[in-house]
Order: sequence, then C-alpha cells, then structure tokens
Amino acid sequence: MEQILETFNRLAHELLADEAKNPVAKHIPTNDLYARLDLKLQKTGISAAELETALKEIVFASPRTATPAFFNQLFGGRQDKAILGDLLSVMLNNSMYTYKAAGPQIGVEKVILREVCDMIGWDHNADGTLAPGGSMTNFMGLVMARDAYSKTARFSGIDQTMTVYTSTESHYSIQKNAAFSGIGRDNVRKIVTDAHGRMDNEALRTTIKDDIANGLYPIMINCTAGTTVLGAFDDLAKAADIAKEFGLWLHVDGAYGGSVLLSDKYRHLIDGVENVDSFTLNAHKTLGTPLSCSIIVVKDKKHLHDSFSNDASYLYQTDEDEFNPGKTSIQCGRRNDALKLWVLWKSVGTDGLARIVDKQFDLADAARAYVREHPDYTDYSMDDTVAICFNYKGIPAEDICTLLYEHSELLVGYGSFRQDRFIRMVTVNANNETADIMAFFDTLERFVAEHTALFKDAARSRETA
Amino acid sequence: MEQILETFNRLAHELLADEAKNPVAKHIPTNDLYARLDLKLQKTGISAAELETALKEIVFASPRTATPAFFNQLFGGRQDKAILGDLLSVMLNNSMYTYKAAGPQIGVEKVILREVCDMIGWDHNADGTLAPGGSMTNFMGLVMARDAYSKTARFSGIDQTMTVYTSTESHYSIQKNAAFSGIGRDNVRKIVTDAHGRMDNEALRTTIKDDIANGLYPIMINCTAGTTVLGAFDDLAKAADIAKEFGLWLHVDGAYGGSVLLSDKYRHLIDGVENVDSFTLNAHKTLGTPLSCSIIVVKDKKHLHDSFSNDASYLYQTDEDEFNPGKTSIQCGRRNDALKLWVLWKSVGTDGLARIVDKQFDLADAARAYVREHPDYTDYSMDDTVAICFNYKGIPAEDICTLLYEHSELLVGYGSFRQDRFIRMVTVNANNETADIMAFFDTLERFVAEHTALFKDAARSRETA
Repeated sequence: MEQILETFNRLAHELLADEAKNPVAKHIPTNDLYARLDLKLQKTGISAAELETALKEIVFASPRTATPAFFNQLFGGRQDKAILGDLLSVMLNNSMYTYKAAGPQIGVEKVILREVCDMIGWDHNADGTLAPGGSMTNFMGLVMARDAYSKTARFSGIDQTMTVYTSTESHYSIQKNAAFSGIGRDNVRKIVTDAHGRMDNEALRTTIKDDIANGLYPIMINCTAGTTVLGAFDDLAKAADIAKEFGLWLHVDGAYGGSVLLSDKYRHLIDGVENVDSFTLNAHKTLGTPLSCSIIVVKDKKHLHDSFSNDASYLYQTDEDEFNPGKTSIQCGRRNDALKLWVLWKSVGTDGLARIVDKQFDLADAARAYVREHPDYTDYSMDDTVAICFNYKGIPAEDICTLLYEHSELLVGYGSFRQDRFIRMVTVNANNETADIMAFFDTLERFVAEHTALFKDAARSRETA
Repeated sequence: MEQILETFNRLAHELLADEAKNPVAKHIPTNDLYARLDLKLQKTGISAAELETALKEIVFASPRTATPAFFNQLFGGRQDKAILGDLLSVMLNNSMYTYKAAGPQIGVEKVILREVCDMIGWDHNADGTLAPGGSMTNFMGLVMARDAYSKTARFSGIDQTMTVYTSTESHYSIQKNAAFSGIGRDNVRKIVTDAHGRMDNEALRTTIKDDIANGLYPIMINCTAGTTVLGAFDDLAKAADIAKEFGLWLHVDGAYGGSVLLSDKYRHLIDGVENVDSFTLNAHKTLGTPLSCSIIVVKDKKHLHDSFSNDASYLYQTDEDEFNPGKTSIQCGRRNDALKLWVLWKSVGTDGLARIVDKQFDLADAARAYVREHPDYTDYSMDDTVAICFNYKGIPAEDICTLLYEHSELLVGYGSFRQDRFIRMVTVNANNETADIMAFFDTLERFVAEHTALFKDAARSRETA
C-alpha cells in the first residue's frame, strides 16, 4: 500500500501542476481514443512502471472539472476539505448499512442529516438518507409518495392510474422515475411555467382537478429548486397549499439549488420548505464535494421505513435500527458519501458552507452584469440563479459550445427555454474569482474573432444537413 | 490542495501502521458514540490542526474492513491497485454521463464492459453499464424484464399482475425491487431450494405453470450466482431452459459469485451464463475493489436503451450515443466506478483477477478442512463456495459473533439455512493467507475459553427474554 500511496501522490501532484498550466485537457475525438491511449486489457499483468505510464496518460487526458475553464455541468471545482474526506472514504471502505460495518461513519452521516432537518425546521420525526445522485433521491421521493398514497402498491402491485405533476422545466428523472416505479412516464403531467421558468400554480391546480374529474389518482407534486437550464425556483409555499388542498405528497428536487437552505441571503428562494414532505439536495453540486453526495430528507421518517425497510437477518445482527441505516436505504451495500461533506462542513462551519453558496451567486451576478452591459450579448438569464444564459453576436449557441470543446478552449454547454436556445454558463465553482469569469468571456470573444471561418463552416454544414 | 494531500498521506500512513498492530478498531457502543467522538457540526469553522485531530479519531475508530480480522461482509481487504484507481477518481471527479464530461474515462468503462461481454461469449449486440451496488443492478435487470414483457408499462403504467421467480436463498433486493417497480413484493415467488441451497428447478416450473393457469403474467426468473448466506450457485443452464420454455427474462444476480466468470477453475459454476438475458457482478466483492463497482451486462443492448434512455438536450450535445453512457444508465450524474477496476485489471491482467478469485476458494477450502477435521465444530458449508458455515461447541452463533464484535476481537456474522443457524465466515479478502484463516479460529477458540461467564450470561438473558 505504501508504494501505491506514493504513486497516487506523484500523479496527483503532477495533475495539479499540469491543470494550473493547462486548464483544459487536450480533446481526443472518440474515433481516435483507442489509438491514442492504451486502454486495452490483457491476459497478463504489466509492471508498476508500465502501469504508471499508461495511467498518467489517461489521467492527463481526462476532462478537468476542477479548473476555471469548466462551466459545463452543475458541478465543478474542488473543495479541498471534501477531497480529503472522500480520499479517506476510499481507504476505510466502510459500507453504510450497519453500525457493525461502518461504526462512527454512521454517526457522521446521522449528524449531517439531523443538521439538514433542523435547518428546514423539522422535528425529530424527520430523518433522511443518502443515495447516489439526484435522480435516485428523486426516485425515493416518488416511491414514498406512491406508497403513502396506496397501502397496497408495494405489496400487490399498482392497480390504479396514478398521476404526478412537475413543470416543463424540471429534470428528466421525474418522468424516467415514473417509468421505473410502474406509474408510467405518460402519467407525468408537465405543467407550464411562467416567464421566469417557475411552475404555474394555477395551471397545476387546474390539471389536478381535471385528472380527478377524469377518474385518475393524483399522488405527487414535484417542485424544482433550481431548474436544470435556468436555475429557477418553483414557489414552494403555493405548491404546498395545493398539495394540502388535494392531499398530495410534495417532493422538492433541490438537487441543484437546494443548498440555498444554508444561506441567509438566498434561503428565501425555498420559503415554505418546512411544509413539504421530502426534499433533496446534492452537496456535490453547489457545495462542491466530489461526486456523489445526494441527500434526501423526509418530514415523517415513517415513510422511509414503509418504502425501504427490509428484513435481512444475515445483515442486521447488532445495534438498534436507528444506527443501521440500511433499513431506510434504496441500496444494500453503500459507499460512504457522507464523510466528504462532514469534513468540509466541520472545517468551514455552516457559515463557510453559506459563503460557498453566496460566492456562486456573486460570480453569477458579475457574469450577468457583464452580459447585460455588452451589446454583443443577448441575455436570457433569470436573477437569483447561478446560471448565466446568453448568446453572443447571434451565433448559434451549439456552434460556440462545440467548437470551444473541440479546440480544448472551454467547457460550457447550452440550453433552451421556450423558443430560445442559448449558452448556459454555470458559476458553481466557488473557487473561481471574478477574474476567472471575465477570462471566460475573454476566451470566448477571442476564439470567435480568431475562428470566423470555422463558424462559417458550421453554419454551412447546418444548412446542408 | 497540496496541504490536503499531505494531511491525507499522514492519516493514511498512520491508519495503515495502526491497522497492522490493531486489526480491529476499538468498539464504541452506539450510546457512547457522541460522547467519545467530536462529530457535531457548528456554525463557525475550525483550524486545520483541530480538524485533523477530530478526523483522526473518527478514522481510527472506524471498522477496519481491510484487515485479517474482518470476515463479516461479502467484501473485505484492499487491492492496492484498485485503491490507486479510486483515489484518482476522487481527484478527477468526472461524471460518467457524457464523453464531454468524462472523456477517456468513458473508454475505461467501455473496455471493461466489452471484456465482460466477451468472456460470457456475447457478441456486439451485448453491452452493459455500472450502477451503485448489486441491489441497483438487480433493479435494472427487473425493469428491463418488465419492459421487455410489456410494451406499455413504462409509458402508461402497470395494468397486469406480473410475477417474478427467485429462490428462498436469494438476496432481499429481489422483493424490494419488485416493490419499487410497481410489480409488488407479494408477486415474487420464493422457490424452494435443494439441500445445497440451489433453486429447485422442478418447483420453479410448477410454480410458473400454476401462475399462468391462474391468469397471472410471469415475466422474470432471477438466478443467484453465490447466495448471500451459503454462497450457492443456481443451475443457470436448467433455468435458461425453463425461461425459454415460458418466454421469460432470465436475470442472474452474480453480485457475490459472478466473478467466477474470470476463473478457469470455477467458471463451471455459472455454466450456461451465455444463455441468460442479463448478468450482474460486483467487483467490490470478490475482486476486491473499493465500494462500489457493480456491473450489469445484457445480451441485447436494445433493452438498456428501451428502459433507461432519455432525451436531455441540455446534456447530450456532443459525440455519439455510444460514448454518452448516461443514455443507458439508471442515474444521471454518476461517479466513476470503473477506473478502480481498470487499474487493477490492467495491472494484474485477467490472469491476476483469476488468481484473486481462486485464492478466495483456496482459503475457503483451508477453512472448511479445519472445521471438518475438528470435532468441536459442526459444519454446514457447501463445497465450491467462499462461505464457511459452522457452529462451535454448540454455542449459539449470535452469541459468539456479538461478543467477538463487542470485545473488538473479530468481525464475523451469522446466517441461517432451513432450521439451522450458524456462523458464516467469508474468505473474500484475497490478501489473507492460510495463517490468517487459522488465526481466526485460534482467536475464536481462545475467546470462548477465556469468557465462559459471558456466554453463560448471554444464554441466561436469552432465556429471560
């Protein structure tokens, strides 16, 4: 193991040094991948030196998600304290089902979950768990909603046409999860949004009423705290009223924006969260931990037990249920995703987590101000989000994003709202400074100026296609 | 980041040194946990030195799953090359949905999946993916089976009573997943096993026929390659005949034992695997990678696309679908679980992986031989497994396991088959040698001899209860 730790350190330091010089890894086209890198597996082993050579090439060629040139996803950057926690999780390799197998790591997880529930304002009936990603925590929310509505579905199967409500701007996992759960993706009603990308609550109420009149069985409203493209926050308080009116479960997909819970300044974006049934947030998005660290909390822990408990006498043999969280998990064996967040939180405090969140909004404000001040840009952004949506000189967003990627300049993607398609820059990396944001625009502008021919080619090939 | 890497190294080296001296962390009772360790989170941050002190105590107190005293789960030990890969995954933090976000790491994953499909004997219609744990890959198998049977379930919801077949010895996730999928846990038929814990295929056939006669809709047979307690392997070839006869999907839960695929010596335990529809194996179990590394492969990749594909224009913007595996994943954002297995495999070769598997069976043979030769032991083990099942001097298994745990001597659990309950020792840590196995028995025997009063107390409190 000592030799492996040395190799890791060498590669990690070399990577950090190279990232500082080259924030974007040289792009390798897919059709060139197997020729350029030695990825193949073979019958016999290789020496440690040969391994290190092959591995270093792969590591160096991997997309650099922690540098100031990565604005492509709803995660980015490297919170170093969280890295420390996750590296230790690898070494410890505890599985988070029982106290016997994970010991104090169960306490680490419980302390985080308790803190999140307290911040929402929930009492000791509330509890939660972690699952690998927001799609999975959203799935858990849907299964609990289904099982809270139907006492029989989990035992004898679904025998009603259940319906689920979410906005047109919500994440695709809501429909995908409806397919997985036996509800069916066509029974998810996509509710229109207002001009800011927030679910239209009057349309929501009307749709629910119509479905009931048609003999269907509404079970759940999904609100989004931070929509994927615009970063918009649905009005939780109003949705909670509607959920109460019709007796529906209210789940909040806060995978992206739910971390505003920690910020005095932006907490108002989820006003009313104390009245929802389940709430999810991804610390690997706006809190900056490595993938993945997805939390779901539920106002009444009874539902976690009803939908996820399991009798496994081979597994649960010591300690009380409260310390054996396998009983409220969608998984069985489960990686320790809690320690990374705990180390970060313990180190910087709740105030420090709030500073991480606030910093992202500050960077977004700086970026939006730049876009709005410069006439070459068309702005499509909403305020109070960490998504900056714009077009530049009327050039199609996909051309700019794809060419920046293929030329290893910047990683950024595009999105759509209603009839508009635009570049979507996400200022989720709290290690960035305003200068990094300005460097993004400088690079984009320089690249467009230097490659007019490429953009003409792209336009021509679109016309031909 | 440099300082964090230093801290990690210091803690990792201290942990390794302490593990060598103390293979079992000192047990902390749950009611003492919060008093003994500083787990609480607070508003303000702490210094790096304070953090390291608190963190070291937690790390040192966590169950040691890599030492020769851990026989409690279906994982254990530390394959150092795999650790290297996983530490680098933390540093790189690529999300495995797109080539744009993960680049060559997508190739790393594809090469592994291709190799597994080739070993089964499947052509290029086959493909696979990774998901976080065997419960999840089994869920994917069930969802594909359901959607292959019903063209409408994923769109309009389940409207038939579907049934699923698995043995009484199979993993609890089969029933739990039936609940999640809307099929219902009561529609899982638990088929009796033979004296070796293998599914009784005649009982399977009869049960399917009865269900059809009763107007139900059988969709899937689940076979287990390595049952949780006994480590038994169902007869895949016979199950494949039955699946074909009734037109059912055949899934193999090889989370525990599926890695025999890599061993010339034990591959025969899954003879017929080429005739199944989907097959799962956990490299974090018998191949020794850190948690988690669960693979599912499917004979016809069409089913992965049918059940898991998604249109997300905000996400899939460059490169062809084949290099954007988010389209065949149950998740959206997904941690890189492939690199750890790739580094191990590249380093030791397929032959080296086979040696890891064979070593576990060799250790199991040594342990079984010891149990069978010594009259104080009662043997309940099946041959050709890495589970050694026994009782010692007629003492209840739960008393021995619990007292060994509470006295920080050994971590081992117990299991049941039919009327018998017994200690289940799992020789899954390929870093162990025969001497480590003999030390296990020495410790157990010494502990029992030195603590007769404790065992009397345990017996008495059971009588009172």
